[in-house]
Amino acid sequence: MAVYTEVPSDELESFVADYGLGRVVSFKGIAEGVENTNYLLQTEKGPFILTLYEKRVAPADLPFFLDLMEHLARAGINCPTPVRDAAGRNLGTLSGRPAAIVTFLQGIWLRRSDPEHCRAVGRALAQLHLAGQSFRRKRRNALGVSDWRPLFDRFALQADQIAPGLRSLVESELDALEAAWPRGLPAGVIHADLFPDNVFFLDNRLSGLIDFYFACNDAFAYDIAICLNAWCFATDFSFVREKGRALLEGYEAVRPLTDDEVRALPLLARGAALRFLLTRAFDWINTPKNALVKPHDPLDYERRLRFHREVTSAAAYGLTSRLPAAAGARDA
Amino acid sequence: MAVYTEVPSDELESFVADYGLGRVVSFKGIAEGVENTNYLLQTEKGPFILTLYEKRVAPADLPFFLDLMEHLARAGINCPTPVRDAAGRNLGTLSGRPAAIVTFLQGIWLRRSDPEHCRAVGRALAQLHLAGQSFRRKRRNALGVSDWRPLFDRFALQADQIAPGLRSLVESELDALEAAWPRGLPAGVIHADLFPDNVFFLDNRLSGLIDFYFACNDAFAYDIAICLNAWCFATDFSFVREKGRALLEGYEAVRPLTDDEVRALPLLARGAALRFLLTRAFDWINTPKNALVKPHDPLDYERRLRFHREVTSAAAYGLTSRLPAAAGARDA
Repeated sequence: MAVYTEVPSDELESFVADYGLGRVVSFKGIAEGVENTNYLLQTEKGPFILTLYEKRVAPADLPFFLDLMEHLARAGINCPTPVRDAAGRNLGTLSGRPAAIVTFLQGIWLRRSDPEHCRAVGRALAQLHLAGQSFRRKRRNALGVSDWRPLFDRFALQADQIAPGLRSLVESELDALEAAWPRGLPAGVIHADLFPDNVFFLDNRLSGLIDFYFACNDAFAYDIAICLNAWCFATDFSFVREKGRALLEGYEAVRPLTDDEVRALPLLARGAALRFLLTRAFDWINTPKNALVKPHDPLDYERRLRFHREVTSAAAYGLTSRLPAAAGARDA
Repeated sequence: MAVYTEVPSDELESFVADYGLGRVVSFKGIAEGVENTNYLLQTEKGPFILTLYEKRVAPADLPFFLDLMEHLARAGINCPTPVRDAAGRNLGTLSGRPAAIVTFLQGIWLRRSDPEHCRAVGRALAQLHLAGQSFRRKRRNALGVSDWRPLFDRFALQADQIAPGLRSLVESELDALEAAWPRGLPAGVIHADLFPDNVFFLDNRLSGLIDFYFACNDAFAYDIAICLNAWCFATDFSFVREKGRALLEGYEAVRPLTDDEVRALPLLARGAALRFLLTRAFDWINTPKNALVKPHDPLDYERRLRFHREVTSAAAYGLTSRLPAAAGARDA
């Protein structure tokens, strides 16, 4: 949400010169992405995004992220493609930070979505999962189920400052999710952060996906569970089943779910809600109460979590095509 | 430095449709300007800036600002030009706020400048002053000499929290400046905020001026005094006379200063330093100490102020062509 690193124009110009993009005609910090510094860079060759990677991104992960975008773009996914410099590198150094130039994607992210948008998101997510299968690099999910308890331990004593009872809720969830977390589901590269601000639309058609800086290897259905949380709740935190149904139908039109995935969905959705609850709660506690930039309210995810706890089958998310019993029978 | 107002895409599209700019292809919040919400809007007709005016800008002032930009652009100044909608209006309403679309200006603002850049700034400032002379609307300077004491009164008791002795320094400056402030200098429309981030360069040539939201009617030489503060100090807060000389020469190449203006310059520069010291100190005190977005350090201007207090003639700013005595003689 803010430019962190100011780039002197002479440094910028010598950096850009290595990429053969012509001269720089405009350079503006963009107020999107809280992890990195993003500039909209316009050169004689058109618009690009220049990203300087700040301290929340591990430099060792950058080749995974950048090569993944290149791989996905080559496989037909509309996503930013890293531009390579004259020496063939897609990662450089600018103002003392790792930096990359990626192609500019047309489109606008939706501040309000309807079920048809969710259908397009489901479809794009499945396409991403399939396209990632031939990607060679691996990255473990640094915010997976085994990382939640260590993260919670860092602020458990303060958790009830956010809401009374939050600590015991999280503890019981950790116990339940760690014990029951499904293993062996179909897995591969997941986006892991496909929130509305990372999906662009143009004339109501999905025009691209951005921000692959949480991408990792994990269960595909967990990525769907993240999207159910990110896309399918109303502003009053009620679940909008029409959106869930459309998202799941869109996904299954490209990659049908296995019965194990269908059965696991409620637990995965509960886990996804807990994951965002935990990172938001951590940021909430570690951000001064009176800061100008308000962190996201972690309790938005406590409400989602409570919804998922009551869910007994994927039918609650709108998956009407298969009932759990029938699914079990088909699976056997 | 941040997007304040999120605009739903359907509202955006219906707003933009009134301007005949074709369909929207991209819409990104830009991390520049702390007063308003700025988006880089790309349509089939090219890039534009869409601004939503937030509460720090008085709606009654908007016709002055927008008509001024249009007037200046027509007079040959490179500045954003408001786009008019089908009904001929340059000001509309979007997401409940006054909003305008202005043309996009190529160029980059300089994080580091040299004397030749300052010369270009001086020249552009003089051109702006001349071009503004035929502008009919008026706006008083809401941050002029008579506004400083009321502003200071709002935080005088806390001023020494910023630096011991600051309160008495400001009080003695207010006394001195109010008593000696020059009247009757050549006046007209001034930019009043021509800091480096409001001046664009392309290939080391000045390509345009932006951000007219402090523009008002006041003494031209006061605008120069602001630029001397904004452009001609080194990072160690020493005055760089070569920059001052270049800025003044650039200005005088377009509009020569009167002898009264030359004589008044040290006092005006001192006043300009106090004006930015006061607004920064006010923001400093009214921003939580541990906020994520740090306000500018007011003491940067205390140092400039102390420099100007020791200046006895414009020669200290590099104006070597005329000595005060000779100037006085010529003026008589």
